[in-house]
Amino acid sequence: MPAACLDFQVTARDGLARRGVLNTAHGQVDTPAFMPVGTQGAVKAVTTAQLEAAGVQILLANTYHLDLRPGAALIARRGGLHRFMGWSGPILTDSGGFQVFSLAERRRIDETGAHFRSHLDGSLHLLTPERATDVQAHLGSDLAMVLDECVAHPCTVDVARTAVERSLRWARRARTRFNALQAGDVGEVSLVTPGQAQLGIVQGSVFPVLRRESAEATVEVGFDAYAIGGLSVGEEPAVMYEIVAETTKWLPEHRPRYLMGVGTPRDLVEAVARGVDLFDCVLPTRNARNGQLFTSEGRLNIRNARYAEDDRPPDPACGCYTCRTCSRAYLRHLFVAGELASKTLNTLHNLHFYLDTMRRIREAITLRRFEEFASDIRQCPSFAASDLERRPSVTPS
Amino acid sequence: MPAACLDFQVTARDGLARRGVLNTAHGQVDTPAFMPVGTQGAVKAVTTAQLEAAGVQILLANTYHLDLRPGAALIARRGGLHRFMGWSGPILTDSGGFQVFSLAERRRIDETGAHFRSHLDGSLHLLTPERATDVQAHLGSDLAMVLDECVAHPCTVDVARTAVERSLRWARRARTRFNALQAGDVGEVSLVTPGQAQLGIVQGSVFPVLRRESAEATVEVGFDAYAIGGLSVGEEPAVMYEIVAETTKWLPEHRPRYLMGVGTPRDLVEAVARGVDLFDCVLPTRNARNGQLFTSEGRLNIRNARYAEDDRPPDPACGCYTCRTCSRAYLRHLFVAGELASKTLNTLHNLHFYLDTMRRIREAITLRRFEEFASDIRQCPSFAASDLERRPSVTPS
Repeated sequence: MPAACLDFQVTARDGLARRGVLNTAHGQVDTPAFMPVGTQGAVKAVTTAQLEAAGVQILLANTYHLDLRPGAALIARRGGLHRFMGWSGPILTDSGGFQVFSLAERRRIDETGAHFRSHLDGSLHLLTPERATDVQAHLGSDLAMVLDECVAHPCTVDVARTAVERSLRWARRARTRFNALQAGDVGEVSLVTPGQAQLGIVQGSVFPVLRRESAEATVEVGFDAYAIGGLSVGEEPAVMYEIVAETTKWLPEHRPRYLMGVGTPRDLVEAVARGVDLFDCVLPTRNARNGQLFTSEGRLNIRNARYAEDDRPPDPACGCYTCRTCSRAYLRHLFVAGELASKTLNTLHNLHFYLDTMRRIREAITLRRFEEFASDIRQCPSFAASDLERRPSVTPS
Repeated sequence: MPAACLDFQVTARDGLARRGVLNTAHGQVDTPAFMPVGTQGAVKAVTTAQLEAAGVQILLANTYHLDLRPGAALIARRGGLHRFMGWSGPILTDSGGFQVFSLAERRRIDETGAHFRSHLDGSLHLLTPERATDVQAHLGSDLAMVLDECVAHPCTVDVARTAVERSLRWARRARTRFNALQAGDVGEVSLVTPGQAQLGIVQGSVFPVLRRESAEATVEVGFDAYAIGGLSVGEEPAVMYEIVAETTKWLPEHRPRYLMGVGTPRDLVEAVARGVDLFDCVLPTRNARNGQLFTSEGRLNIRNARYAEDDRPPDPACGCYTCRTCSRAYLRHLFVAGELASKTLNTLHNLHFYLDTMRRIREAITLRRFEEFASDIRQCPSFAASDLERRPSVTPS
């Protein structure tokens, strides 16, 4: 097992919840952390300056989208994704596996990798564990993901086991490729970010026994950190929380843990309670564009006629730019009138709400009051609603 | 002729070009000034904080749009447009006349006013000189426009004369109503901004004799400032420049002059050379959203494939946020990928270019080098292109 090179220090604990500091090639991340999604090299409707002002420490970008357009090699020639998009902080890139998986009949998986047709022009592509590693080396992200095979929910234990086993073989190939890149043994691929770290992904659907097998075998390969994949794909929240617990307990204490594509404010709290450190989700940004705001009082649909003459800020307890400068009446007008500023202002608020939730989680862990904080969040039913779509689709909305 | 209450000081002159300071109820404007268009109470794709950071001193908002949605009375109940949209600086509102004029077969003009059907729901409305004045009192703008009758281009001198005479009768009605509002004699209409000023509008199409008659008669009514309407509606630029000159010479030296709906960078310079102080135009913002950037080297269409790997900023001579942080390659990617940030970043750049052009115009006037500056601008053919649509349509794009 190669030595992990990603520096991660747990600085406080409360139960299974942990607070920590992750040091990447592009700076520090306080965990538990939420990563806004910048699918195509931009978080929709906001600028990087607005992300910085909102206190964002780390972004996620989607390898599938960026490699199809404008292309990972083009981005590498520009000096990597950080320089290309003008973001100097840490970036995590996914492997593209989940987006290919979501293409349904436009893709076919075999041992080599995932054969798929682009949603942009129908062109045929092959994503292998090696290529997913190379593409992320080209993008120069700080945290790169291995290619894994996701399965639909529900699925049989046999289907899930087959995917776990294939994901493991792919993980070994990806790690071998990653180590070769680090050693400079792959001449044709430039390594944009020398300190790039690679994360393995635990699969196993909703089966605890498979989660344990997947976790132990992935840890045996040896990665810088570990992700929990294949959740938030339609299972009940309670099932997801149980599977998170059944996964984290087989992961090393001293390595970061990342729950992919999750989730609601309630989900974040429940996963932190089970030992997770990193999250990403399109929920705050996508719902913002659709007029749904997360507030300390629950969810608020700004298009509602009841807000037409409401002079209060969206969330009286919030200190974000939107809440400091805009009334519900104004935001409703902008939404109804189809103004682009509506998407920007709502996105700024929802990102602030998510980041603030993470700040409060970290603070609660330090103060050993995490359970108190969690029970506050649990009392707000609209933070747990199962009508919220958590995962990114291939075609950005 | 009632005393004008709007404070305006000319501080420097170079030929007919003048530099000045306009003091409104919501602060100072350095003239010549360009007003970004915030049709529906927001400049498309940017926040008010971004406008402030770009150095915007005064905005234009459209009475037609705001009165139909969300309604001027609703905005008055919110404390006026400044509070509603969170903009503490000066605002000019148009009368709605130009938008009604652009509705074509959906409107009918008679002596009472303009009867029209809403582009939103087809509902029937009547815009009179009095109502246009009341609505702007409700909005609480700093600078309010009288309702005028625009004519199409080309038109006969008889059609133009009829419109000039009607516009004049409407101007008298509007001024009477404005004075009554100021005196508190119209109980049912709240005057949101006590220091509101009212501008008369000179019409007369492309006929110098009518422009003189309209100007003299409008000045005789007595307004705080004077606008030149009915231009930039399809006539050749050279004709527009001539008519501007044939209008400004009949306007009082000590009152601000506003050329409505203009224009290209070349137009701004030519109109300043003929004594104009204020401008508004959708060109920088609308073209930004369509990927067209104004730069010191001319216009640049960011969607062009030639920029795919161009690491230079849009305008190497520009210091705006976009040019400081984004390459052409990144901006092209965002445009091609349909990212909302593309519209925001392009808008920030074009607004900066327009505001910077005005700053340089003011500086050149002070230094008595205005002709030098003007001839630089004249040498750039893409700043004068007649393919540029200057005026706002009813349906915001």
